[in-house]
Amino acid sequence: MGTADEAGSTATRARVALKEVGVGRQRTRMVVRAVVVLGVTVAGSLGTPSGVRAQAIKDVQTPDTPLVLKAQGSFFVGGEKIQQSQGELGNLGPGGNITVNQMYVRYMVPQGGDRNVPVVMVHGATLTGKSWETTPDGRMGWDEYFVRKGHPVYVPDQVGRGRSGFNQAVFNNVRAGSTPPANLPVWLRFSDEGVWPNFRFGLAPGKPFADSQFPLTALDELSKQGVPDVSFGGVPTPNPTLKALSDLASQLNGAVLMGHSQSGSFPLDAALLAPAVAKGLVLVEPGRCPPGYTPEQIAALAKVPLLVVFGDHRDNPTGLPTLPTWQARFEACEALIGRLKTAGGQAQMLNPVERGIRGNSHMIMQDKNSLQIADLILVWIEERVAKRSGAK
Amino acid sequence: MGTADEAGSTATRARVALKEVGVGRQRTRMVVRAVVVLGVTVAGSLGTPSGVRAQAIKDVQTPDTPLVLKAQGSFFVGGEKIQQSQGELGNLGPGGNITVNQMYVRYMVPQGGDRNVPVVMVHGATLTGKSWETTPDGRMGWDEYFVRKGHPVYVPDQVGRGRSGFNQAVFNNVRAGSTPPANLPVWLRFSDEGVWPNFRFGLAPGKPFADSQFPLTALDELSKQGVPDVSFGGVPTPNPTLKALSDLASQLNGAVLMGHSQSGSFPLDAALLAPAVAKGLVLVEPGRCPPGYTPEQIAALAKVPLLVVFGDHRDNPTGLPTLPTWQARFEACEALIGRLKTAGGQAQMLNPVERGIRGNSHMIMQDKNSLQIADLILVWIEERVAKRSGAK
Repeated sequence: MGTADEAGSTATRARVALKEVGVGRQRTRMVVRAVVVLGVTVAGSLGTPSGVRAQAIKDVQTPDTPLVLKAQGSFFVGGEKIQQSQGELGNLGPGGNITVNQMYVRYMVPQGGDRNVPVVMVHGATLTGKSWETTPDGRMGWDEYFVRKGHPVYVPDQVGRGRSGFNQAVFNNVRAGSTPPANLPVWLRFSDEGVWPNFRFGLAPGKPFADSQFPLTALDELSKQGVPDVSFGGVPTPNPTLKALSDLASQLNGAVLMGHSQSGSFPLDAALLAPAVAKGLVLVEPGRCPPGYTPEQIAALAKVPLLVVFGDHRDNPTGLPTLPTWQARFEACEALIGRLKTAGGQAQMLNPVERGIRGNSHMIMQDKNSLQIADLILVWIEERVAKRSGAK
Repeated sequence: MGTADEAGSTATRARVALKEVGVGRQRTRMVVRAVVVLGVTVAGSLGTPSGVRAQAIKDVQTPDTPLVLKAQGSFFVGGEKIQQSQGELGNLGPGGNITVNQMYVRYMVPQGGDRNVPVVMVHGATLTGKSWETTPDGRMGWDEYFVRKGHPVYVPDQVGRGRSGFNQAVFNNVRAGSTPPANLPVWLRFSDEGVWPNFRFGLAPGKPFADSQFPLTALDELSKQGVPDVSFGGVPTPNPTLKALSDLASQLNGAVLMGHSQSGSFPLDAALLAPAVAKGLVLVEPGRCPPGYTPEQIAALAKVPLLVVFGDHRDNPTGLPTLPTWQARFEACEALIGRLKTAGGQAQMLNPVERGIRGNSHMIMQDKNSLQIADLILVWIEERVAKRSGAK
């Protein structure tokens, strides 16, 4: 693959360039933080109500060099005012206006890196921005790693989830009897058992692939990342997250948009709203690569560098027979890459298997070799986005 | 008041001590980050569906000195496994186990400050940990400010909200018709109009107190912080956040627990679960100071330093006639302080009005003088917690 070969040949150059931003070369060696743990719950058995084996703070690793930030904080993008009744607001007080469909964003800007291209990382279904933070087994998340490599990083919660909230009116109306229960949107969550085949940890629960890169001893921590997801019925169409991502990229004067799984195609659709500010699109294990883009849309997207990233074991049955396998999605993305290339685009597949890197899962940003994968994406950004746009 | 006088006399000492942790003296002067903004929505009128005036990234201020972190990241405390049916999980796949009642926590540890007493900041009703981050008008939140003053800071989302998620089963069961709608828990949200009297910005919407400290031009940003709150019916009793806070303090080998509004009394109840690891309790505008503690409970709480913080205009009618005024809550806290003092405790009220500081609101951590209030709390921690426990 082009990406793989080019990544190898530009790695040294990328490292030299990144040194200049003042963050310095960060290695993955960690030291365990010395915190005394007084009360840790122990493991419960699968399938029965029980305490969950706790990830104690001692399990969270501390890097051996400090993180130097020019800025960090949070803000919202988008949102609209709607008027709701007393009942819709839960009868705490009189009716009035609230804001819905806003998108929460947390950010970190590295000292010396504020002129480098920002990276926006969007999580997948039944998850939140936590996906990109400290991994289930306590290693550095991609959010901090990309910052340490010189990039401002922006991590949203999709509209409808996490700190972005959702519109609660219909639930209170059904409770009050003024709306029929059938009008309720569905809340989705993945079970611990379901993620084994679907996230490609193994063929079945407790049967990991021998080469699995996911930190399976910390599966209970991945389970805690799950939140109910009302995206399919409880969020307006088109999903307000798309416009919010486009507006965020505009406010940043250009950004790399990275999506994962259910949000894997969001960078494409956000870029179509304002192609000029989408400096690069990274689709990490996307749930879909839409087949139906018009020639005009393909022409617009061909102006934006695209990288699609997929892990291993894509032929694994997902346990969700109504949905395509990950291999089918991979092939749909290959087809899209083909269309974009024909239109003159810089579109590439990053398939670690072709580099001899085996066992990566759907949660590739949390896999044991997550920083190895991050390095390949960082090299692509350096080569295809940073140099192209004149930044860094 | 004792707190106020002592705060004044120890301010210089506190600053000297905090200098030693290597973070350095941080001033509140800010420089506005230079980011070009391309697409900003404009204000909509009150009471009609409309776009919300966007806080552009240019409105978010950047400190003039970098933030140097030994560590940052996130993890979960607590949680329990429960088995749910296919329908309860939203029919995406077969039934199985999920985790509920876990508490998400984001943390920052300052370089050189990892031996100082950590501060845990818990948000109030219909809000998330965002309360403590960047203020609605783009200034530094207490989370970063306390870190810059040398303290590790841990910001949870309460169980049932934000990145901690909630148990969605009953909603899907009602949707499917297997549970009656009356079984649904209520979701609460405050309206934009309701917060004017209740959060004590003014007597009525659009009628601010002349001395209001809240950044009223950024009210739309406070509105975006609102999320639906299922705490009253949709979260187990006792609230799992209490045990999670106690466990977090245990894992940290001791912490100051700070609550706000609906969680204002959480530090008290968490401390009762494990008094030895509650190094100090800060109740910021607490919704209640429970009157019913037994003599044994008072004796246990009297061993932990307590600070209660209330703003101005407490007699303002809240617009919620079924609930007590803030002055009534203030007086209930004075009564608790009295009981604790009688039992030999170090319990104090911080009432900025008595220092001539007027106009503070219920959202005191977001008020224009938020760092002035933070300094008073930091001095109290220095004097009553840090010196007492031998840390710092």
